[in-house]
Amino acid sequence: MFETAEVGNHLEKADYKRQEPKLRTALLEAQRALAGSDFSLALLIGGVEGAGKTEFTNQLLEWLDARGVAVHAWGKPTDEERERPFFWRFWRILPPKRKAAILLTSWYSNPIIDRVCKKTGQAELDQRLDQIVDFERMLAAERVLLVKLWFHISKSEQRRRFKNLEAEPETRWRVTKQDWRFHKRYDKFREVCEHSLMKTSTGDAPWHIVEATDRRYRNLTATRIILDALRQRLEQSRSAGKPEHKADHSKPRANSVIRKLDLGLKLDADAFDKKLEKLQNRIGTMTRCLRKKGRSLTLAFEGPDAAGKGGAIRRLTQAMDARLFRVDSVAAPSDEERARPYLWRFWRDLPRVGRVALYDRTWYGRVLVERVEGFALPQEWRRAYAEINAFEEQMAESGIIVRKFWIALSADEQLRRFKDRQVTPYKQYKITEEDWRNRAKWDAYEAAACEMIERTSTEHAPWVLVEGNDKRWARIKILQSVADALESEL
Amino acid sequence: MFETAEVGNHLEKADYKRQEPKLRTALLEAQRALAGSDFSLALLIGGVEGAGKTEFTNQLLEWLDARGVAVHAWGKPTDEERERPFFWRFWRILPPKRKAAILLTSWYSNPIIDRVCKKTGQAELDQRLDQIVDFERMLAAERVLLVKLWFHISKSEQRRRFKNLEAEPETRWRVTKQDWRFHKRYDKFREVCEHSLMKTSTGDAPWHIVEATDRRYRNLTATRIILDALRQRLEQSRSAGKPEHKADHSKPRANSVIRKLDLGLKLDADAFDKKLEKLQNRIGTMTRCLRKKGRSLTLAFEGPDAAGKGGAIRRLTQAMDARLFRVDSVAAPSDEERARPYLWRFWRDLPRVGRVALYDRTWYGRVLVERVEGFALPQEWRRAYAEINAFEEQMAESGIIVRKFWIALSADEQLRRFKDRQVTPYKQYKITEEDWRNRAKWDAYEAAACEMIERTSTEHAPWVLVEGNDKRWARIKILQSVADALESEL
Repeated sequence: MFETAEVGNHLEKADYKRQEPKLRTALLEAQRALAGSDFSLALLIGGVEGAGKTEFTNQLLEWLDARGVAVHAWGKPTDEERERPFFWRFWRILPPKRKAAILLTSWYSNPIIDRVCKKTGQAELDQRLDQIVDFERMLAAERVLLVKLWFHISKSEQRRRFKNLEAEPETRWRVTKQDWRFHKRYDKFREVCEHSLMKTSTGDAPWHIVEATDRRYRNLTATRIILDALRQRLEQSRSAGKPEHKADHSKPRANSVIRKLDLGLKLDADAFDKKLEKLQNRIGTMTRCLRKKGRSLTLAFEGPDAAGKGGAIRRLTQAMDARLFRVDSVAAPSDEERARPYLWRFWRDLPRVGRVALYDRTWYGRVLVERVEGFALPQEWRRAYAEINAFEEQMAESGIIVRKFWIALSADEQLRRFKDRQVTPYKQYKITEEDWRNRAKWDAYEAAACEMIERTSTEHAPWVLVEGNDKRWARIKILQSVADALESEL
Repeated sequence: MFETAEVGNHLEKADYKRQEPKLRTALLEAQRALAGSDFSLALLIGGVEGAGKTEFTNQLLEWLDARGVAVHAWGKPTDEERERPFFWRFWRILPPKRKAAILLTSWYSNPIIDRVCKKTGQAELDQRLDQIVDFERMLAAERVLLVKLWFHISKSEQRRRFKNLEAEPETRWRVTKQDWRFHKRYDKFREVCEHSLMKTSTGDAPWHIVEATDRRYRNLTATRIILDALRQRLEQSRSAGKPEHKADHSKPRANSVIRKLDLGLKLDADAFDKKLEKLQNRIGTMTRCLRKKGRSLTLAFEGPDAAGKGGAIRRLTQAMDARLFRVDSVAAPSDEERARPYLWRFWRDLPRVGRVALYDRTWYGRVLVERVEGFALPQEWRRAYAEINAFEEQMAESGIIVRKFWIALSADEQLRRFKDRQVTPYKQYKITEEDWRNRAKWDAYEAAACEMIERTSTEHAPWVLVEGNDKRWARIKILQSVADALESEL
């Protein structure tokens, strides 16, 4: 594919001088339109070393209003980054709506270099590329416009440039030993890059290969690609009708996984006390070992109102060192969170090695409340299953133990608990109008929960269904599952 | 002062059982009131090793609703923390309004340990404690309720506890070699801690010493202190009248530093081009050395609308590698920023080692626009000078080179530029109604600027006054200052 970028494209100085001012004005205008839009721009500039990625970026920043454009290039991961999944460092810097980021290295750099240096095989490369395709598809759907440029020069041109840079005292520093090492492997790089670009050039985020031998041609061509992409996306935003948000009224199947639970299961107080103490001791001991083993733990709790999520969480945290755990209660997102993909708020707070994160309601809000209430569009919550699976897979890969609990409750038992909350003074704050409103949509919530469990119960992040009518039974089952998970994973 | 915590306070089990439920309910109620308040809670739990800081925190989290309470304990700084000022790691986790954080280590840990281990002398300790007092005063004024508990046990009690813990296989891990090393220096610790507590027990954030020998006494006493502090602060919020926001109409003095500038200074185009190229080369070379020298650079730009801040920034960034700099344009804060002290947004984005941060408008908004327009109360902007000086001092201490530019402009020249913007198509977006409104308050803005320069031009972060009527003159003066600053600091 790179042959198309070795055909000798170039631009005369006079042509450049004529075209540049217009292009520049148009670009600035597009940036201003972006600032009033509903999406963000992530511009990936990849390519052959020496092709002028930084040079072009400098030029671009001069043409653009540099305020509101962040430039990122990653070297060795920091220790905070090493303790999280690979994609974390990229999630951290995702531009909010209306802003732009330029990525001079990206999620492509490591997979490609690792493959060239034979740290990974072809299968692993392909797997990582698949992850990238998923990631980019999600970004595109979540209103991040990805523009991917690839600057190409031939092997001989690369050599010529390195030599020229080395000849001048003030540019000598720009050529590193690694540059020459990589130059020797130019052909292998070419092969791996070609493969990678082919596999990741998608409708949502196609690669644009730019012949970078002639600087003037490179600069104007690349800028024009960015401008076209921006304009197209702006047009798309303008012409898109206001999406119709509709509540979802699916009905649960009669023999759903949830309905099949035996909600009559019970535990008596004595058995409970004995088991609780034993399990808490085990959990306490094992969570202390997480750090040493380079692992962390994420526990997600979902279930109808009054199912006992808070109580179960409390029995778990009782067992743990306060320095190690964090309980998050997922409420309305902040404006910084709303300006980014919905998973961003969970990515930003991923636990460090050795820590435990407990979630009272989770990222599954997307396919539960947002689906049922119509806050998310059908296409949004439908694609969320795969996005969430990818998220949890990456957690698991990086050593985070993930367990998810659905605490089931009968409608009668919920009613009993609501009424109890209303008459008990110190529980009254727990019951709101909203709880009653949600209750009226019991069936829709149950249908959504069933589909969620079906689509997102994976080996690395299984759902544990908990019979929740008896609190003692539910709590012991949850603690038991956590203890078992820790035991099998550590 | 610790004698008062060695008097044998204790609580019988029966008394504890009687008092606990009431206290617990009251505490939960106070937490709910906090969730509807206009401040946040930072609970510092310091004290002698083995006094039960973590044990108490566990108990407290059980009594509280753990959602919305973050627990923090810092060990060795991460590399991202090491590249910023000492207080950065604490700014990172400041709880937003309506939430709470428990700090099991804090800004006291390092100064005390460094002094005990003789890494620092008494004068340096005192200097650090002064910084802490300033920091805490700012937090208190910015609506962070600081409750500082100190758990005390005697040397013999500490020894007894370590021995007991070591005697049991399941608790042996809790006693480290460092614990015993510190135990040997108990008396020195006592002396340094006593001194530190005395110096930092202020009206805004007093220390509360709790005798921690008897667990029941310790838990209830500490909880009561927290509860009282919360209730008092809640009462204060309730009884505080709505503050009266008033625009500021100060008049500038006739012979102010700004008026004394010779705005007739000019540079011709030839001299400009020559100087620009030389200066850009020098700046480019030196900014590349920042990383190696462990330094970073922060450049702050203020001045009337149309003074040429953007143009000057552009001439600087032209000289730099796009991977190294970031241009921030300070606009309205996000809701996450509004929920924390006003300096938080600047702390969170402090540049890493090797980087350059350029600000088009800055933290000085507090004493400029917020003062003039009445967004900040007089007591708020008046204290801001000292807060900002402390902020910049900490930047400078940690190796960030700070330079601030006030670009002065005559009212006539501003008018000329405004009119020019109105008639030039690609500049029209730059001029808004607000610019004209601000212009009408010229005198008040000038008075505020003069006071700002007077109060915040320090050796480590000086203001450079720039005659801005001639853009060429202004740009060269700014680039010259930056080049000189880099040269003298690197």
